[in-house]
Order: sequence, then C-alpha cells, then structure tokens
Amino acid sequence: METMRWLEEGYLELLDQSKLPLEVTYLKCKDYLDVADAIRRLAVRGAPAIGAAAAYGLVLGASKLQALSKEVLISGVEATAKELMATRPTAVNLRWAMDRLLNRLRLAETDNVSELKSALLAEAKLIYQKDLDNNRKIGEYGQALIPAGARILTHCNAGALATAGFGTALGVIRAAHEAGKNVSVYADETRPLLQGARLTTWEMLHDNIPVTLITDNMAGYSMACGRVDLIIVGADRITANGDTANKIGTYSLAILAQAHHLPFYVAAPVSTVDLSLASGAEIPIEERESTEVTHFNGHLVAPAGVKVWNPAFDVTPNRLITAIITELGVIGQPYSKNLQAVMS
Amino acid sequence: METMRWLEEGYLELLDQSKLPLEVTYLKCKDYLDVADAIRRLAVRGAPAIGAAAAYGLVLGASKLQALSKEVLISGVEATAKELMATRPTAVNLRWAMDRLLNRLRLAETDNVSELKSALLAEAKLIYQKDLDNNRKIGEYGQALIPAGARILTHCNAGALATAGFGTALGVIRAAHEAGKNVSVYADETRPLLQGARLTTWEMLHDNIPVTLITDNMAGYSMACGRVDLIIVGADRITANGDTANKIGTYSLAILAQAHHLPFYVAAPVSTVDLSLASGAEIPIEERESTEVTHFNGHLVAPAGVKVWNPAFDVTPNRLITAIITELGVIGQPYSKNLQAVMS
Repeated sequence: METMRWLEEGYLELLDQSKLPLEVTYLKCKDYLDVADAIRRLAVRGAPAIGAAAAYGLVLGASKLQALSKEVLISGVEATAKELMATRPTAVNLRWAMDRLLNRLRLAETDNVSELKSALLAEAKLIYQKDLDNNRKIGEYGQALIPAGARILTHCNAGALATAGFGTALGVIRAAHEAGKNVSVYADETRPLLQGARLTTWEMLHDNIPVTLITDNMAGYSMACGRVDLIIVGADRITANGDTANKIGTYSLAILAQAHHLPFYVAAPVSTVDLSLASGAEIPIEERESTEVTHFNGHLVAPAGVKVWNPAFDVTPNRLITAIITELGVIGQPYSKNLQAVMS
Repeated sequence: METMRWLEEGYLELLDQSKLPLEVTYLKCKDYLDVADAIRRLAVRGAPAIGAAAAYGLVLGASKLQALSKEVLISGVEATAKELMATRPTAVNLRWAMDRLLNRLRLAETDNVSELKSALLAEAKLIYQKDLDNNRKIGEYGQALIPAGARILTHCNAGALATAGFGTALGVIRAAHEAGKNVSVYADETRPLLQGARLTTWEMLHDNIPVTLITDNMAGYSMACGRVDLIIVGADRITANGDTANKIGTYSLAILAQAHHLPFYVAAPVSTVDLSLASGAEIPIEERESTEVTHFNGHLVAPAGVKVWNPAFDVTPNRLITAIITELGVIGQPYSKNLQAVMS
C-alpha cells in the first residue's frame, strides 16, 4: 500500500486516508490545488507525508506556469509554495520541502524553464525516496533501544501512511519486529479523527504485529496496570531545545510516562527539526473545526451548537523526552546542544 | 428532565440515556428484568442512579413474587437482588441499595406480605428522595471549595442524569453557579460512550453554565495552557483508604492534575464508600465489549476483528485526591482515618 505515487503522465495519486480502513481509494491530483485540498482535509497527513505530497504539489503548480524566464518561474513557484504552506501550520516538514525545492531552482545552473521544471520533479522524487531511506535508518537506530518482548504504546499514526513508507515511530516498531524481538503494541485510538484506530491498527495487522486498540483515556490505566514498557510517538515539529509538537494527546502521554517511570521516545527525520524556533512556545498550533469533535461519519453526537476547543497538536517539553530518534542517530539530552551538533 | 420516575400504576419509567441528547425517550420497566437490561446497556448509568433504579427494580421483582410468608418473600427478593447486582460489578451503590431494601424487609415488624411489599416501595422512594437531598448537600459543601471564576474540568457525567437529580460533581458546579461564582466548565467527551459530549454538555447548556467540549486527550494540554483551575469528578466506588474507582480516564486526569498542581476533587454520596475493601486493588473493574470502541452508531470505524481492551473504569489512588466531597461534609487526607470517622 503506497501513501502516494507519482504517475509519469504527470500527476500525483494520493491514498485517501480519511476513508481508511473501510475504503481504499486514491485521489487523482492533477493540480496543486487538489494537493492543497487533500492536505487540508487530511486525506494525506503525517508530517513527512505532507512534506512529500506538497513537494509533488509544487511540481504540479510549476508545470502549469507559463514562465519565459527563470526569474518569473521562481516567483510563480514561490507564490504556489506559500499557498501550500498555508494549508497546515504546525508540521514544519511542509516548509522544509518547499524550501528545498525552491533552493534547487535557485541554485540550478540552467535558465531553461523546461529543464528547471524537470529539476523540480527530480527533487520531489528525491525527497520522497530519501524519506523512505530515512525511516529505515530511524528504524535501525530506534530498534536498538527496544527490549525483547517490549509492549509499546503509540499515539496517532506515525507509520508508513504518515511518511513515504515504513514509518517513524511505527518504523522503529517494525524494525524491532523484523529483528525478532516479539514486540506488541497498544494503539491509542486518537480522537478526534481516530488515526490510531483506523490507520495504526491497520498497519500493524497488515504486518502481523500484535496490536490492541484502546481509547486515549485508557493509556494511563494501562501504564498503572503494568501493561506498557515504553512509549514511542512521531513529531510534527521539534524546536532547537527539543520541545516537540505532535498530535494532541502526546503531551498527556509524556506526563503519564514520567509518572510511571517509562521511557518516552520521539522518532522523526531531521526535516522535522526547526532550529529557527528556540522553544515549543513559538510553534503555531493548528485549531480545527468543531465538527471533528461533535460529529461521527456526519452524524451529530453532542448537543447542536455546543462550544468546542479542538487543537490538533500539543507541545511536549524536552524534559519529558527520553531520546529523539533520527536518521542521523539517537539524540539524548541536553537537546539544545545535541540537536545543533547533529544538524551541522 | 427526570432520570427516572415511579408511576403509581406500579411501574418505573427510565430516561434512555443511550439516546441522549438527540432523542428524549422513556423506557417503561414493568419487570425487574427490564431494569436489569437498562442498567446493563447503560440506558441508566451513574452510580447513584443505578442504585435508585435497581431499588425500584427490586420492588418490581418483589411485586410479582407469589409468597405466602415473609421468609419465602425474603428469599425470593434476595434471589432477584443477586441478579440485579450482577448487572454491573464496579459501582457499589447498587449493592448498597439492595442491602438497604433487604434490611428493611428483614427488620419489618409485620409478616403481612402485602404490607412488606409496600414497605419495599417506600424504601425505594426514600433512596431516590434521599439521593436528591444528598446531592444538594454535596453541592453546598463542595461549592465552598470553588473560587469565583473557576474554570472546572470534569469527566464523564456525574450530573442530574447520573443520580436522582442535581448531580454530584455537576451538583457542586451547579451550586457554585447558583452562588453567582461565574464558573465555567471543560467537559471531557469521555470515550468510548461519550457521556461527557452527550450528557454533561447537555446538562450545562440547559442550566446556562458556560461549557466547552474537548476530547479526552486534550485535557493535559488544556491544563498546560493554563485553561483549567481545578478538576472535579464523581465516583463509582471509594474504598476504606480513599482509593476511588470512576469512569476510565479519571486516573489519567488525576496524574495530570498533580503534574500541574491543580486540586483534584471527588464528589460522591457516602453510599459510594465501601469500607469492606481496604484499597482500590480489590475493586472489580468491569471490562465491556470491544464494539463500544470499534463502532459508532453501529458503524465500524476500525479494522474488523482488531483486538480491543475496554475497561469501563480505573482506580485513582488516594494520594492524588485533594478531598472527597460527601453529603456529610468534605473529607480530607488521611482518608483511612477520616472516612471511617465520618461513616460511623
């Protein structure tokens, strides 16, 4: 099952994750606006997957630009990148991918617009392929931290579906499984959009990794009952000091992990690290519409018109994170020093 | 809106809470088996409400017994009480109500079966009326602890719907509101059955108390953001040392409250206290079927056949509880000593 695929006829197919696991359908994106829409309504989600999809989206945008010079092309691509970046504010991989494509254009040694457009596509494919490779490396570094027989709790979906493939947090679990460690998984369902119930369990069942679904509010009690050995999650943005934005509920898990003396790992590619922000207080946290909470499958479950607060992410402070697992290695505290060192 | 009402024709009407807030319908219970079924499938829920409903259920059971002597009547009523107690294992109010009715029979100074049946009904009505009075007292004692302008987080529904009326945790909030304290409420939606989203918001909107609905996994972040001043919940069973069983997710909230230095209050009538158990480790925790987690309104949302763990309650250790608010007053630590003192 591929999260996305580029068709050589010149368009992108995106697995519509909002319909999983009950329906497996691909969206045809022939225009960057289709990609922007898919990102906005979470047909594609997960920080690395958003980055890769937006990269292809920018290629689609550029392909339609009638530019006669490199300068005009670049300014058109910049405008499209801005629109794509506005779709979701929290994950930094989106901006990272846009920056990478724009740099490729700016540094290209040709002025030929057609060649520049080809270079953009080549760079998007590289981002996609590199993400797959990175996840394998994250898996290798991460699985060394996982004891045999570990019962691992995870939140949301940081799996193949959230990336170009294999996954970050689930990549570590997959690598531990491949290493014969007999791991098993507790999947938080992850309200409001149930990425854990719909996507993580689906991926684990597919790979024959034992998985048990729980509601988010059962995580603490599962720890108190001694059913969990460690927690591992993905990330949407990691600031210079190691503070980490991830799916809402991650912060609560980190507090619970600390209270139960359990390791709490974050697994993410370095494209998720944003050294331009000093701490998590600076991360923009997306708030989404109330109907995500008040409705299921289009059916109202709460009183009509009730006020809702629906932040899509929260921030886990660095002190609660045991280690950050990247494709460049496992990074420990103090993050302010160690992230900088690894990134440079 | 009444949670239940006894009709003098000799039957019980129960508000079907599984259909709220979208439908307001009453179930006619003409037999104790109807009541048992309503308790089992959570048409009536909340520890005090279960106790009162089961009391009326026992009256219905007794009314059909063809007993010619007090002894035969009592043994029949005992058998019915056993069946009613088996419907849900965690809330102790059910057993408490059955014991009270049986004691009324045993201590009655008449051998007339018809008079004994009338005495049972009188006792059931007393339990119902007393619960309403108790909640008013809990509200009065509790509201003294609530600062003006307090933003209060609550979990599940410990409201009028969970009791004979007014509520325990929501009773404290109502009393604070009536005292002009300008309180506002964050309601955890409370998965899997959404008692917070469906019932607590509905009660608060009805009383014009400002309420904001959040998913359970947003509670920690709402505390980190400084949006919450205190937490108050109900209880299904409190053991001799103050350990408290309540709706799944309560334990996580208590850990989060401690991490954020916020008061964590339990509000419950003393019928919820079970001095026969030394600690929470002895409380039977009900596990319910997986479809509560995997389905919404009958629609599957997770992969078919995925394994689920679905404990309906968890246990919060006494050390995390700031105070227990009862109709006899506010009980502080050490609970082992103070619960005993208040109860005797």
